[in-house]
Amino acid sequence: MPDNHVPSRFADVVLTRSAGGTSERRADRVAREDPLEIRLNGTSLAVVMRTPGDDEDLVLGFMLTEGILLEPKEIAAIEFPEDGRLDVRLAPGVSVDPERFQRKLFVSSSCGVCGKASIEAVQLLAPPAKAFSVRRSAVADLTTRLRSHQPTFDQTGGLHAAGLFSLDGELIAVREDVGRHNAVDKVIGAAAKQGWPLRPLLLAVSGRQSFEIVQKAAMAGIGAVAGVSAPSSLAVELAASLDMLLVGFARGETFNAYAGVHHLVD
Amino acid sequence: MPDNHVPSRFADVVLTRSAGGTSERRADRVAREDPLEIRLNGTSLAVVMRTPGDDEDLVLGFMLTEGILLEPKEIAAIEFPEDGRLDVRLAPGVSVDPERFQRKLFVSSSCGVCGKASIEAVQLLAPPAKAFSVRRSAVADLTTRLRSHQPTFDQTGGLHAAGLFSLDGELIAVREDVGRHNAVDKVIGAAAKQGWPLRPLLLAVSGRQSFEIVQKAAMAGIGAVAGVSAPSSLAVELAASLDMLLVGFARGETFNAYAGVHHLVD
Repeated sequence: MPDNHVPSRFADVVLTRSAGGTSERRADRVAREDPLEIRLNGTSLAVVMRTPGDDEDLVLGFMLTEGILLEPKEIAAIEFPEDGRLDVRLAPGVSVDPERFQRKLFVSSSCGVCGKASIEAVQLLAPPAKAFSVRRSAVADLTTRLRSHQPTFDQTGGLHAAGLFSLDGELIAVREDVGRHNAVDKVIGAAAKQGWPLRPLLLAVSGRQSFEIVQKAAMAGIGAVAGVSAPSSLAVELAASLDMLLVGFARGETFNAYAGVHHLVD
Repeated sequence: MPDNHVPSRFADVVLTRSAGGTSERRADRVAREDPLEIRLNGTSLAVVMRTPGDDEDLVLGFMLTEGILLEPKEIAAIEFPEDGRLDVRLAPGVSVDPERFQRKLFVSSSCGVCGKASIEAVQLLAPPAKAFSVRRSAVADLTTRLRSHQPTFDQTGGLHAAGLFSLDGELIAVREDVGRHNAVDKVIGAAAKQGWPLRPLLLAVSGRQSFEIVQKAAMAGIGAVAGVSAPSSLAVELAASLDMLLVGFARGETFNAYAGVHHLVD
């Protein structure tokens, strides 16, 4: 059923802002992130995590730039059978083997496509959360310390970094990569050699805290994720549902806690 | 054949730096990006674009955080049969259905896994490059103008933007998304409704210019990509091979041209 309302690109959140020794609660907004399943003549092709809105543009650009379709007129219609799902109907005479291009993502193989189902899939698979607490001062300078252990960035400005720290702020490992997810996979893989799942730790990332970054931390048993940048709506929801600490805009002495603020102690 | 050298995380490039009315060539470094095929007991599971180095950490973290394996000891060995390919050998008694997790990416379905093969695949599929020229002044303020047309970013700080501009600097469309690739797909999809492939245009992006961003522009027939951030090595190679203009660190009046500098005119 098509509807004509323009979906909101952001979600309202209440966060706790820490600055030096003080903290205060305030209302703010984060960018919305929600899964969209793309089907081709009824067959699932891909699930993309995207900000709702302009979904027709998204799927047309996706099909053309990935080489799945050759021109826009190969599409007869784009249907929206339900929220979070879209079906590309091909023009008569056009055929594509979806198998050739299928991307089966983690979330698509284990659950439906709404954000709630994505969260439940991680809840089901992640190890149980453990109680932990962390000093505000240990969180405050995490991203500065991450940067100071990032050798290639200084040379190229082009790499993401992920760092694991103990709850006392002791550095365990840092890894760099052009991909945000790869940097997180590398640093978790490095720590996993000493035991799995990991104990409650602090994961500091140089990029945005999207759903998949918090998912990876959750799967590893890491309790806290902090970054210099903004989290997405689905990342906040996932962290809250798993009682994880999620920190954004960590710059110098100030940071925002979007979930799990009770883990913070002075 | 295992080797013990640590692969370099960056690549040497020669770029042309424009600042106001002047420009000069200089040597610099960019972050390396290269495909890695991950196999599971000999079956292809995924191709990830990553920075070489710590590949064992990467695959261990990837397997665990994506829920493909439950613990590190399910891996008997990680083999490197050739450059850019890695095979995870499972411990006796451990079985995983690769079909359940397989990710078939564009580059893996059409070519091998080395960077050169990825570039050749795009060369084969992208429309032929067209001659074009663009004034330095039109490039200089692209990213500032992109930011001025980015409504949600100002509210959340959490969205990537992609903008299409004519060679004269006229804005055609801007789209936002939590994902860099999605923002590019959306803006290309929006423009594709008026004809495909697109004519030579300027694509401005808020995020890093990785291989896949330049690939998407190439597939659309867009001649020039500019961003505020750094390109990867494979993005520079792809742009050079297709005679595209690739601009990075575009901030105010200064920018770096990494490929296709001859398209720039005063």
